[in-house]
Amino acid sequence: MIRLYHFPLSPFCRKVRLTLAEKRMEVELVEERYWEQAPEFLRRNPAGKVPVLKIDARLMSESQAICEYLEEANPAPQLMPRDPEARYEVRRICAWFDDKFHEEVTSKLLYERVHKKVMGLGYPDSKNVKFGAGRIKYHLDYMGWLLETRRWLAGDVMTLADFAAAAHLSSLDYISDVDWNRNAAVKDWYAKIKSRPSFRTLLADQIPGFPQPAHYADLDF
Amino acid sequence: MIRLYHFPLSPFCRKVRLTLAEKRMEVELVEERYWEQAPEFLRRNPAGKVPVLKIDARLMSESQAICEYLEEANPAPQLMPRDPEARYEVRRICAWFDDKFHEEVTSKLLYERVHKKVMGLGYPDSKNVKFGAGRIKYHLDYMGWLLETRRWLAGDVMTLADFAAAAHLSSLDYISDVDWNRNAAVKDWYAKIKSRPSFRTLLADQIPGFPQPAHYADLDF
Repeated sequence: MIRLYHFPLSPFCRKVRLTLAEKRMEVELVEERYWEQAPEFLRRNPAGKVPVLKIDARLMSESQAICEYLEEANPAPQLMPRDPEARYEVRRICAWFDDKFHEEVTSKLLYERVHKKVMGLGYPDSKNVKFGAGRIKYHLDYMGWLLETRRWLAGDVMTLADFAAAAHLSSLDYISDVDWNRNAAVKDWYAKIKSRPSFRTLLADQIPGFPQPAHYADLDF
Repeated sequence: MIRLYHFPLSPFCRKVRLTLAEKRMEVELVEERYWEQAPEFLRRNPAGKVPVLKIDARLMSESQAICEYLEEANPAPQLMPRDPEARYEVRRICAWFDDKFHEEVTSKLLYERVHKKVMGLGYPDSKNVKFGAGRIKYHLDYMGWLLETRRWLAGDVMTLADFAAAAHLSSLDYISDVDWNRNAAVKDWYAKIKSRPSFRTLLADQIPGFPQPAHYADLDF
C-alpha cells in the first residue's frame, strides 16, 4: 500500500505524483495541512514538510530522494538515463527548479498568492509578486534556450528533470502566472508533457477558494 | 585537469572537496568572489553560485549533482551504498543538511557572522544568530539519535551523507559555533571523519579577517 501525504499545489509533491503515475504505481493521496505542524504529522516527518510517502510501513521524505528511490526500485519506464554525464544533467536541472526557480519564482508567486491565504498569513506582498513575475521570464527564456538543442529539458528523452520543471510550472499555471506565449518551444514542451496520462492527477486538482481557470486542464491551451 | 571554483567556508564546496579528496582526484582550487557576480563567472555558471567544477572543458554546478556524478564516474572508494533503500537514506540526509540545516543554522550563523562581513553587507542580525544558535542544538540531538543505532549517519558505512553533514559543521566550527560537548556520539563521529586524510584540505583553510581558532585543526579537539 502506497500513500502520499501532500498539498495539491506543492511542486515537490507534484514531482513525486508524476513519477508515481508514470511508473503506474497506485497511490492514495492524503491532503496534509503541514503548516499546522500537527504532532502526528511531525512524527511521520521530523522535517515537517510535504511530500511524505508511505510505502508499507516505511515513511520517506525529501522529494528528490524519493524520486531517485522510485526510479531505482522500479526502473520501468526509465526516467533517468544510464550515462553518468546525462544523469548529472538531469540532477542539475532538478536542482535548478527545486532550488533557484523555487526561490525566485514559486515562493514569490504561488506562496504569496495561495499559501498565505490558505495558511491565514494575510495578503500577498506586492514587491515579492512583482519580483517573481519578472524572474519567471528569465527562466522561461532559459528553458527555451535548452530546448533549442534538445527534445526534452535534460536531453532527448523525458526524465525527472522534465517532471521537476512541469511540477513548478503547472502549480503556477493553476493561478494563471505562466505566459505560454513567451516561447514557442516551451509551450510545445508543456503541451507534450501535459497530455501524458500521468498528468491527469494534477489536472484534476481543485483548491477551495481558488477556482481552476479554464485553460489549466485544457490540453489545447 | 580538474579545477574547482569555490569559497573556502561554503559547505556546498566543502562537500565536493571532501568527495574529490576521498577519491584521490587532484584538483586546483580557485577562490571565487561569487557574490560580485562577475560576467566571466556567470558565463561559467548561470546560477551564479559556487561550487563550479571544471573537468577538462566541462563545467558543472549544483553540489549534489556533482557529488553523485563523481561517485558514478569514479566508483572507488564507494561513497554510496548499492541498495536502493540505503541510497535513499543517504540522499535524504544530504537534503536534510543542505536544505533544512542550511536554512535554520548555516545561513543564520555562518552567513550572518562571516559572509556579511566579507561581502560588505554590514553587521550580523542578532535575532538570526540567536535563532541559529538555538536550532543547532536540535540538529546535534537529531544526529546523536541517528548515531545511537548507526556507525555513520546513513548506516554502517561512511557515505556522502557524512560529508554533507561534516561540510556544514566544519564551516561552523571555524567560527567556534559548534558545542562538541553536547553529544558524545556526535563528537566521536566528527573525530573519525576529521582525522581522514581527505579532511586536511579543509583544516588548512584560512579566511582573512577570521583567524583560525586553535581547536579547529586539532584532531584532539
